[in-house]
Amino acid sequence: MLCFNEGRYYVVRVVRGNILSFNEGIVKVDDLLGKRYGETLYTHLGVRFTITKPAILDVVYRKFTRRTQVVYPKDAAFIVLKTGVGPGSRVVEAGTGSGYLTAVLAYFVRPDGKVYTYEVRGEFLDIARRNLSIAELDRWVVFKKKDVRQGIDEEEVDAVVLDMAEPWSALKHAYSALRSGGSLACFLPTINQVERTVEEARELGFAMIEVDEILMRRYKVKRGETRPEARMRGHTGFLVFARKL
Amino acid sequence: MLCFNEGRYYVVRVVRGNILSFNEGIVKVDDLLGKRYGETLYTHLGVRFTITKPAILDVVYRKFTRRTQVVYPKDAAFIVLKTGVGPGSRVVEAGTGSGYLTAVLAYFVRPDGKVYTYEVRGEFLDIARRNLSIAELDRWVVFKKKDVRQGIDEEEVDAVVLDMAEPWSALKHAYSALRSGGSLACFLPTINQVERTVEEARELGFAMIEVDEILMRRYKVKRGETRPEARMRGHTGFLVFARKL
Amino acid sequence: MLCFNEGRYYVVRVVRGNILSFNEGIVKVDDLLGKRYGETLYTHLGVRFTITKPAILDVVYRKFTRRTQVVYPKDAAFIVLKTGVGPGSRVVEAGTGSGYLTAVLAYFVRPDGKVYTYEVRGEFLDIARRNLSIAELDRWVVFKKKDVRQGIDEEEVDAVVLDMAEPWSALKHAYSALRSGGSLACFLPTINQVERTVEEARELGFAMIEVDEILMRRYKVKRGETRPEARMRGHTGFLVFARKL
Amino acid sequence: MLCFNEGRYYVVRVVRGNILSFNEGIVKVDDLLGKRYGETLYTHLGVRFTITKPAILDVVYRKFTRRTQVVYPKDAAFIVLKTGVGPGSRVVEAGTGSGYLTAVLAYFVRPDGKVYTYEVRGEFLDIARRNLSIAELDRWVVFKKKDVRQGIDEEEVDAVVLDMAEPWSALKHAYSALRSGGSLACFLPTINQVERTVEEARELGFAMIEVDEILMRRYKVKRGETRPEARMRGHTGFLVFARKL
Repeated sequence: MLCFNEGRYYVVRVVRGNILSFNEGIVKVDDLLGKRYGETLYTHLGVRFTITKPAILDVVYRKFTRRTQVVYPKDAAFIVLKTGVGPGSRVVEAGTGSGYLTAVLAYFVRPDGKVYTYEVRGEFLDIARRNLSIAELDRWVVFKKKDVRQGIDEEEVDAVVLDMAEPWSALKHAYSALRSGGSLACFLPTINQVERTVEEARELGFAMIEVDEILMRRYKVKRGETRPEARMRGHTGFLVFARKL
Repeated sequence: MLCFNEGRYYVVRVVRGNILSFNEGIVKVDDLLGKRYGETLYTHLGVRFTITKPAILDVVYRKFTRRTQVVYPKDAAFIVLKTGVGPGSRVVEAGTGSGYLTAVLAYFVRPDGKVYTYEVRGEFLDIARRNLSIAELDRWVVFKKKDVRQGIDEEEVDAVVLDMAEPWSALKHAYSALRSGGSLACFLPTINQVERTVEEARELGFAMIEVDEILMRRYKVKRGETRPEARMRGHTGFLVFARKL
Repeated sequence: MLCFNEGRYYVVRVVRGNILSFNEGIVKVDDLLGKRYGETLYTHLGVRFTITKPAILDVVYRKFTRRTQVVYPKDAAFIVLKTGVGPGSRVVEAGTGSGYLTAVLAYFVRPDGKVYTYEVRGEFLDIARRNLSIAELDRWVVFKKKDVRQGIDEEEVDAVVLDMAEPWSALKHAYSALRSGGSLACFLPTINQVERTVEEARELGFAMIEVDEILMRRYKVKRGETRPEARMRGHTGFLVFARKL
Repeated sequence: MLCFNEGRYYVVRVVRGNILSFNEGIVKVDDLLGKRYGETLYTHLGVRFTITKPAILDVVYRKFTRRTQVVYPKDAAFIVLKTGVGPGSRVVEAGTGSGYLTAVLAYFVRPDGKVYTYEVRGEFLDIARRNLSIAELDRWVVFKKKDVRQGIDEEEVDAVVLDMAEPWSALKHAYSALRSGGSLACFLPTINQVERTVEEARELGFAMIEVDEILMRRYKVKRGETRPEARMRGHTGFLVFARKL
């Protein structure tokens, strides 16, 4: 990540030989090689910048190619904590989509865990693969071109995360794949999907079923002019959580 | 975690020789030793239960002693993802309080990271220490009886997380302690604290300052009777995020 | 309304001969007669108070007997403005319940309008009648012990407001009773009721169908400690609006 | 209001001799004269439409010229009910702005009440005057080109509604102008304005001070696809209410 003054910054891929062009001037990638985070350099126009290590959200939400509706950070964060996905976790995810949630999951299962991600549409799988490679998180991901409704190959996994149109068709397989105590999370845009998913989960014997919605409000803070921002996302999706006990 | 039918479950500490007493009957801890997760046992009344590995939230929000206002999962989750705290991260936290947020941070920095947590009140430090030990996360935490406003001992840390009344007094030290690209997060109940923190952060040169509030709505889902729950927490705190760039 | 110092106040009914007893002392209603709003008097203990005209919400939400779930001010207010119920309006309401919404509607249709309120349960009708009489709004209300699903007697009404379990069964009659351009409003706790009501409204030819939810957040304001209140009502009901065009 | 099929409708001003042109064809205003609401006519292209009486919101939010930030229906409705502004009320308002809130207030004080609206900027007063005339509500409004911070001419009014940048400068006059039991309402975009207004109101002896925020969520309802709308207004303003007791 190259940071210029006044909060302008760019997340870049380090590809040998590449030339990067900004409003602030041109930067040769080769000049960046061997530099450490925090070091200061100049563009060909003499504009100063600092090299910084990007955070996971910098990479995922700024550099990823987006072809599908993606899960928002507010939702991804809550899914991770509620399911307990953390270092060493083995997680099954479906569908992969553009790989945003895959990347967040992969980030947290390092260094010993694994994300098995299912996607039927080959073109999305390609995009997701490229995205995960940009984030340098691909070694923690197993990409599978398979319909999760046909079955889950993994066993005794810690969590199953479903971001797909008909998660109820995959719940039976999710239940089988989960270890005792393992967590299920589903991200669902409509309340009808929620109803159907909850009913199917109840029938299969899932416990601790809970339906939550996370809303985020951003504030504009300035002395004497502090207020919530006028624009807000009114809805992304509902979250269904359950456990195999 | 001992799971009985119909969603009743108890998170227990495995202390050799202890006797656990539930509505469902008595269980000797010694009988649990050597058993694996998923195995089924019976209480002295013949009631069946399964031994399950608890999730991080099961332990933190059900077994921890609470002496202070604690950070809610919705907020803790967002702090973790926004700051990029993950496997290997070195994090400074203040104040420790009852250690809820400390535990969540410790959970995610495993196996190679570390949480340095500052607290001036000795009695809270003791409670937090015990809580972290219950969660078996204490080896990733360094407890420090010190006022973070007097200085931070660590250098080049990945994140500083402040859950204290006057974070602005500690921002200077936070800035020094952070590595380039590192993240600051503050949890603040009042809007006045937010204003003062944001102003101080701006003056110190923090970049990408952002103020968010996370709201969670829970739903009661039943065929034909689905609705948001009547009770909702209207406010926990505001979150101020910033970066050292 | 009798207002004492420090924000203590009581809404009272003026019944000749009655004795009112407060923490601040005893007041004889007969002593209040002939006094004007704004005048100051004393209890038998010598505590000073002022006689003030109560506002509509003072009476409805403090003096009414409550036997049913009642519509909140946030919802009642929006129903009134969206339907355009105002001076002179002729409104059909069902069910009456404890008469809270009836009173709000009656308040706004004065001096020439009328609220026709339908209720099948006689005991609620009695309570509502008494409540409306306390608010001195009963002359603008026609109470009808009738199931609105069996038909609406009135014609060319300006608005139909339904706060009942199965509004879809009454929509046909609502459509017939409404004048061209008239408004329908339904208050519904569950999303399933919303779906069914909207579908039926569409089939009947209602136009401008809109579903809204009103949330209210209260703030605690004190210099340096301003924040949203921790407790908030997470849900009362959804509002379905439609027009006969 | 002319209503065509499939929910298309236009609110028009009846000005003798005018020609109205729509996608559906041309309509001569003279042909509308003498017709009653509910009657059906045809455009010169033979497209059928019905003449309907518009609701107050149809006129205010569709036909008014907008030059300033305007108060939203969700906020206007709550102001009306909380202050108890109704038939016969005498209300002072400042500033007038484009006259949206003025129109809503005027609508509810009919037939015997009056809205005294203060505005220092002449150009807005002209726009508001024209807007109120379009809504045929101007006879209930007294327009005053005067700074409300210099004083309020009216006495014993039922409510004072302030939608201006510095309401605290006018609170003293508001207190004097209000009758005992009268209501104050302020609409304020920032939390800092709220703090200052509340403090001034407390000092002046206002009682029952309350700060609320009204949020509206709209839903998209379709069988099997029901969800909150993705777009939502995150903030309009805070509402401060108080009473003179």
